[in-house]
Amino acid sequence: MMKQLLHTPEGVRDIYGTEYARKVEVENRIHSVLSLYGYQDIQTPTFEFFDVFSKEIGTTPSRELYKFFDKENNTLVLRPDFTPSIARCAAKYFSEEKLPLRLCYAGNTFTNRSDLQGKLKESTQMGAELIGDCSVEADAEMISMVVQALLDTGLKRFQISIGQVEYFKGLCAEAGLDEETEMQLRACISGKNYFAAQELLVERRVQEPYMTRLLKVADMCGDMCSLTEARAMVNNDRSITAIDRLEKLYQVLSAYGVADYVSFDLGMLSKYNYYTGVIFKAYTYGVGDAVVKGGRYDKLLTQFGREAGAVGFCVLTDHILEALSRQKVELPVPEAPEVLHYTEETFQECLAQAKRIRGEGRPVVLTAATGGNR
Amino acid sequence: MMKQLLHTPEGVRDIYGTEYARKVEVENRIHSVLSLYGYQDIQTPTFEFFDVFSKEIGTTPSRELYKFFDKENNTLVLRPDFTPSIARCAAKYFSEEKLPLRLCYAGNTFTNRSDLQGKLKESTQMGAELIGDCSVEADAEMISMVVQALLDTGLKRFQISIGQVEYFKGLCAEAGLDEETEMQLRACISGKNYFAAQELLVERRVQEPYMTRLLKVADMCGDMCSLTEARAMVNNDRSITAIDRLEKLYQVLSAYGVADYVSFDLGMLSKYNYYTGVIFKAYTYGVGDAVVKGGRYDKLLTQFGREAGAVGFCVLTDHILEALSRQKVELPVPEAPEVLHYTEETFQECLAQAKRIRGEGRPVVLTAATGGNR
Repeated sequence: MMKQLLHTPEGVRDIYGTEYARKVEVENRIHSVLSLYGYQDIQTPTFEFFDVFSKEIGTTPSRELYKFFDKENNTLVLRPDFTPSIARCAAKYFSEEKLPLRLCYAGNTFTNRSDLQGKLKESTQMGAELIGDCSVEADAEMISMVVQALLDTGLKRFQISIGQVEYFKGLCAEAGLDEETEMQLRACISGKNYFAAQELLVERRVQEPYMTRLLKVADMCGDMCSLTEARAMVNNDRSITAIDRLEKLYQVLSAYGVADYVSFDLGMLSKYNYYTGVIFKAYTYGVGDAVVKGGRYDKLLTQFGREAGAVGFCVLTDHILEALSRQKVELPVPEAPEVLHYTEETFQECLAQAKRIRGEGRPVVLTAATGGNR
Repeated sequence: MMKQLLHTPEGVRDIYGTEYARKVEVENRIHSVLSLYGYQDIQTPTFEFFDVFSKEIGTTPSRELYKFFDKENNTLVLRPDFTPSIARCAAKYFSEEKLPLRLCYAGNTFTNRSDLQGKLKESTQMGAELIGDCSVEADAEMISMVVQALLDTGLKRFQISIGQVEYFKGLCAEAGLDEETEMQLRACISGKNYFAAQELLVERRVQEPYMTRLLKVADMCGDMCSLTEARAMVNNDRSITAIDRLEKLYQVLSAYGVADYVSFDLGMLSKYNYYTGVIFKAYTYGVGDAVVKGGRYDKLLTQFGREAGAVGFCVLTDHILEALSRQKVELPVPEAPEVLHYTEETFQECLAQAKRIRGEGRPVVLTAATGGNR
C-alpha cells in the first residue's frame, strides 16, 4: 500500500464525529436566520465555465483557480466563491418583476494556492445575496443578519468592520493618481503595509496634502467620529457620498439594534474587485481572519446582462468553528445511539426491540455480541 | 457579454425554489433513517489524490475521472464515488476496537463523460457504510435501511434486486474461463447484451453445458425459486456458498419485514470491481436507472492497509427526485415568507413588526414599497 493513499491532499480534510456534528449544528443555526429573513436556498454547480470567474468578473485571480477540462475541451473551474454563480443565476432565471430577490447558499469553495501555509484549499461557506435592491436598508439588512447569525452560533464577542470602497477611489481621483498607482496603493493598504504605501507615493511624486491623506486612509478606523474626520479630509463628491451612505447605514443599524457591533474602517479594501460600495468583515477573537466577508456589488450583474444592484455576504464556516472551539462555546451534539448486542438466538427479539426504539425516533445500533467480523 | 457566461457546463445544473426545497426534504428524510440506525456523519474532501480512485481500487475508470493538478503537481481527482474515501477514513482514523463502524455521508460526485447524453456529470448522493461486519445480518441491515429510506421519501412501488458476484465468478471458474473472457462476459451480461455474450462464448469455444449455463445467468432473476434453479445449475463451492448466503439473507430480510420488496438477479454485476459478495440495486418506475446501488466490499479496506469486511450503499438523490416527480408524490415545502412593504415613514414600525414575526420563528421579507432599486 502506498503511504499517500491514506492521506488527503494538503489543505483539504476529513471531518467526522463531534467535530462534524458541531459543523452541522452551526450551519443549521445560520441557515435558520437566513430563512427567517426570507432568503431562498439555491445550489449551483461545483464547477463552472472559466469565464464565470474570469478577471473581468473580479473574483479570485486566475492563478489561484483549480482549472481542468471536460471531454469537449472546455476549461472548467472549481468555484472559488459563490457570488458570481449566484449573480449568474439571478440574471438567468429571475424576471425583473421578481426583484428584489433574496437567495442563500451553502457549499464548498476551492482556492489553489501553495504560498499560504495552513490555509484551507477547500473551505465551507454559506451566505446570502440580496439582488435588485440598492437601498441603504438592504445594506443594513445584510449586516443585521450577520450579527444575528453570529449571535445564534453562540459567539458573543465579535465586531463588524465596515468600509466603503468609493471613499478611497474618490480620494485617489482627487489626488490625480493613475489607475496603476491606485491598484498598487490598494494592495499596500489592504495588506496593511504602511511603508510600502509610503514608498510608492514618494516614488510616484504624489504631493501634499494627498500624500498624508492617502496614507491616513490605511488606519482610518473607529466609530462614527472617524467618519467626521474622514469627511473633513476630502473635497470630492464621490468620497462625500460614501461617507453620507455610511452615516445613513449607521442610523438604520441602530434601528435594528445592532450598532454596538459595528465600527468603520475606510482602509478596508477587498481583494474582490466586484465590490462597488459598502464592504464589511466580521472578526472575533481566536481567529486571525475574518469569519464573515461581504459587500455591495452593483455592477457585477451587468457582466451577466442584467442591470441590478446587489449586496451579499459569505460566512466562512470553518473559521466560525475554529472561533467557537477557541472560545470554548458549547454546542449540543446528537445523542449517541443505544447499542443492542444480539446472539443467533436473540436476534429476532433484539430486532423487535430496535424497531420499537427507532419507531420512537431514537437511534439504536444492532450488533453481534461476538463482534461483527464473522 | 458572452452568451456562454449565463450557462452551466453540460451535465451540471442550478437548482432552486420548490425543486431545491423538495431535494432538501428528501435528503433530510433519508438522513433521519440513517441516524436512527446509528450511522454517524462523515465528510470527505471533494477531491483526493488520484491513487484513492485508481484502477486497483476498482471504482470509475480513469478516463471518466475529472483530473487536475495542485501547485505541487500532484494529480487530483474529483471524487466519482464516496466508498473509497470512506474506506480510506475507516482505515485511517478508527481503531480495531471501534469496529464495526457505521458511517454515512451526503455530497456530490463527478463523472467526466460525453457519451451518455442527458446523464448528470455532477450528481448528489447520500449513503451508508457498515465497516468491520461480514455477517449476513449486516447485509440485511443495509437493505432494510434502503427500504425504510425509500418508503420515507414517499415512494411506494419499488423493488430491490439482489445479486451475488461470487455466483458468476464460481461458474466462470468451473467453466474454465480465463480472466479476460470473464471480464468481457461480465461486461456483456451487465449490459444485458445477450447476443454479444453468445458471440463471445462461441468465439472462445466454451463447451456445453457451460455455454448454456453462462448465458442463462443473464436472465436468472426472480424470487426464491430462481435461487433453487441457480443452485441446481452449478457444481462448485463458490457459487453454492453464494446461493446459501442469499437464502440466509432472505430469511433475515423476512424478519425485518421487508422481504416483499426484494427479488434476486444473479446476472446483476456492478461496474465497480471492488464488490465481492452481495450487491443490490433499487428500481422504481419513472426512472430507468437504479435509485440506490450497493453491495459488499470485503477486500477494499485491504488496499488502505486494514483487514475489514464492509457493506454499503449509495442513494442517487437526483434519481429519487425524478421518480417522486414522475410518480406525483407530494412533498411539503417551506411556507413562503410574509412580505412587509415599508416607506421611509413606516420603516421603524415595519422593522419592529418583522422582528416580532421572526421572533415567533416565521419568515418575513422587509422590502421597500417603491421597489428596491433606488
